[in-house]
Amino acid sequence: MAGDGEFEFIRTRLLPLTEGDPAALGLADDAALLQAEPGQETVLACDSLVAGVHFLDSDTPAVVAARALRSNLSDLAAMGARPRGYLSAIAWPEALDAAWREAFVRALHREQSRYGLVLIGGDTTSTPGPLTVTLTLVGQIETGTALRRSGARPGEDVWVSGMIGDGLLGLLSARKAGTELAGALERYQAPDPRLELGLALRGLASAAIDVSDGLLADAGHIAAASACSLRVDVDTVPVSPTARDWLESGGALDALLAGGDDYELLFTAPAGCRERIAALGLSLDTNLTRIGSVMAGEGVQARWGDGSLMQPRKSGFTHF
Amino acid sequence: MAGDGEFEFIRTRLLPLTEGDPAALGLADDAALLQAEPGQETVLACDSLVAGVHFLDSDTPAVVAARALRSNLSDLAAMGARPRGYLSAIAWPEALDAAWREAFVRALHREQSRYGLVLIGGDTTSTPGPLTVTLTLVGQIETGTALRRSGARPGEDVWVSGMIGDGLLGLLSARKAGTELAGALERYQAPDPRLELGLALRGLASAAIDVSDGLLADAGHIAAASACSLRVDVDTVPVSPTARDWLESGGALDALLAGGDDYELLFTAPAGCRERIAALGLSLDTNLTRIGSVMAGEGVQARWGDGSLMQPRKSGFTHF
Repeated sequence: MAGDGEFEFIRTRLLPLTEGDPAALGLADDAALLQAEPGQETVLACDSLVAGVHFLDSDTPAVVAARALRSNLSDLAAMGARPRGYLSAIAWPEALDAAWREAFVRALHREQSRYGLVLIGGDTTSTPGPLTVTLTLVGQIETGTALRRSGARPGEDVWVSGMIGDGLLGLLSARKAGTELAGALERYQAPDPRLELGLALRGLASAAIDVSDGLLADAGHIAAASACSLRVDVDTVPVSPTARDWLESGGALDALLAGGDDYELLFTAPAGCRERIAALGLSLDTNLTRIGSVMAGEGVQARWGDGSLMQPRKSGFTHF
Repeated sequence: MAGDGEFEFIRTRLLPLTEGDPAALGLADDAALLQAEPGQETVLACDSLVAGVHFLDSDTPAVVAARALRSNLSDLAAMGARPRGYLSAIAWPEALDAAWREAFVRALHREQSRYGLVLIGGDTTSTPGPLTVTLTLVGQIETGTALRRSGARPGEDVWVSGMIGDGLLGLLSARKAGTELAGALERYQAPDPRLELGLALRGLASAAIDVSDGLLADAGHIAAASACSLRVDVDTVPVSPTARDWLESGGALDALLAGGDDYELLFTAPAGCRERIAALGLSLDTNLTRIGSVMAGEGVQARWGDGSLMQPRKSGFTHF
């Protein structure tokens, strides 16, 4: 009989990640079985991370696990959903040996515990190519309350959480060991999805998205889905002290606004909600900044404080 | 602004695959939103297909699309679930140009129409490696009625649908153009998931699995999940005329039993169900063959007609 390393790996390494959740059926069946709570909808988000594209070949198992789970959780956050479980489809290159795989699984376990979800299914394959981690995140949300990209209306405010640009600076730091920009590397390696904020924005925000492709590109997604134009006052976009230093030493703001991987929430809300949003920022200890307005028209207008338009070289990352 | 080929592709090529299903939210949001029917559970199956591992680099877009969707549907069939929708996470190598991608999407559309499901979400990325297609299939099933691998009990019969071995012979044919074994190539390129059979086996079969890893390996999965032993009488395993020719010209039966990719259903049922199962085979016009027994113990016993044991060189495919 052939070696059964794959099934042994599933039984001894992946099975503990289910933490006995009945939906996983002990990873011993062809699919997971999920019981929906009454009055809830199921939220499904699916993203692939490819070595050399979404993370560096040199990234540690812990960094890959954190980025994979957290970037996917950010999609749930943007809908205002609570995480429930996930399916992992991992294509392993031969170069990653058993020790690497085990370190990855241990890191995944830490990550899922941090965010309160468990593994409920998936697939394990080999690949002659780069490590490819596809996670399907399953969340729940009260029926009809999900945040969407399509609700922005002219006259509303545009908001963003946290700081923009550290995702890009962290990636630059990770690429060039020794040139670490304080704090940014950690923001790249372990972004913190805004799950609580997403939950709290339901009934308050009119549209929301997470900043993964780049602030201006993601603003464009809201504009397109809402059939509006989004004006972004680029001087008001919050950046970290690290990013300010980087800008002062010659870095370009448009690169930060197109960099992506920030995993902050970009959202729109009626002007009448300003006080409630400010209070929410205080209660969650999260920076929430008003960075522009929704207008009639289409597309994104990135505007400097003097009223002139920024002409970004690109608005974000696209795969082809 | 950067080229937005990726988003254009999603909007013009993938969006039509949603066929307006509300769960897909127009592919314009961060996740899909699925409303569960009352009294139903959600079934989630997730499999990756990697070029060079699960299909050939030379396979056409139509073959890759058919194999990807159908092998995943086979997992739903094995649970007795009805397909509802799917999320696709596709990592495209540069070598596959726009024409290839479009042919793939057209084929996916034909496939989903054939099986009555629609695209509800997913991800599109680039990869420096081989084409990797990860589908997450979403099915529905009346609560508590799902077929499982764990219900086999000593004294029950072991059954299999269709013919075993054409998956392997089809792969051999596909690898060597010009040596096509009649009919087998089509079985490899476009296996037909046993969705109707899976549905009908609920309340009849005590355990079920689809034959994807290889008949003996998959029998082993039922044995392990059910804490029983499965005896397979190898002379009774149904093979196609093509496979019989291949065996007579020197091919080995144990290779067919370990070959996988048959996407037939292997199931167990009490002896009292034989007539009902025979009637079911007639009504579905599907070959259903009794090929062994469930016994106390563990593992799989592959036995020749004279009572001697087959010692297969391997029971199935594993990834590491």
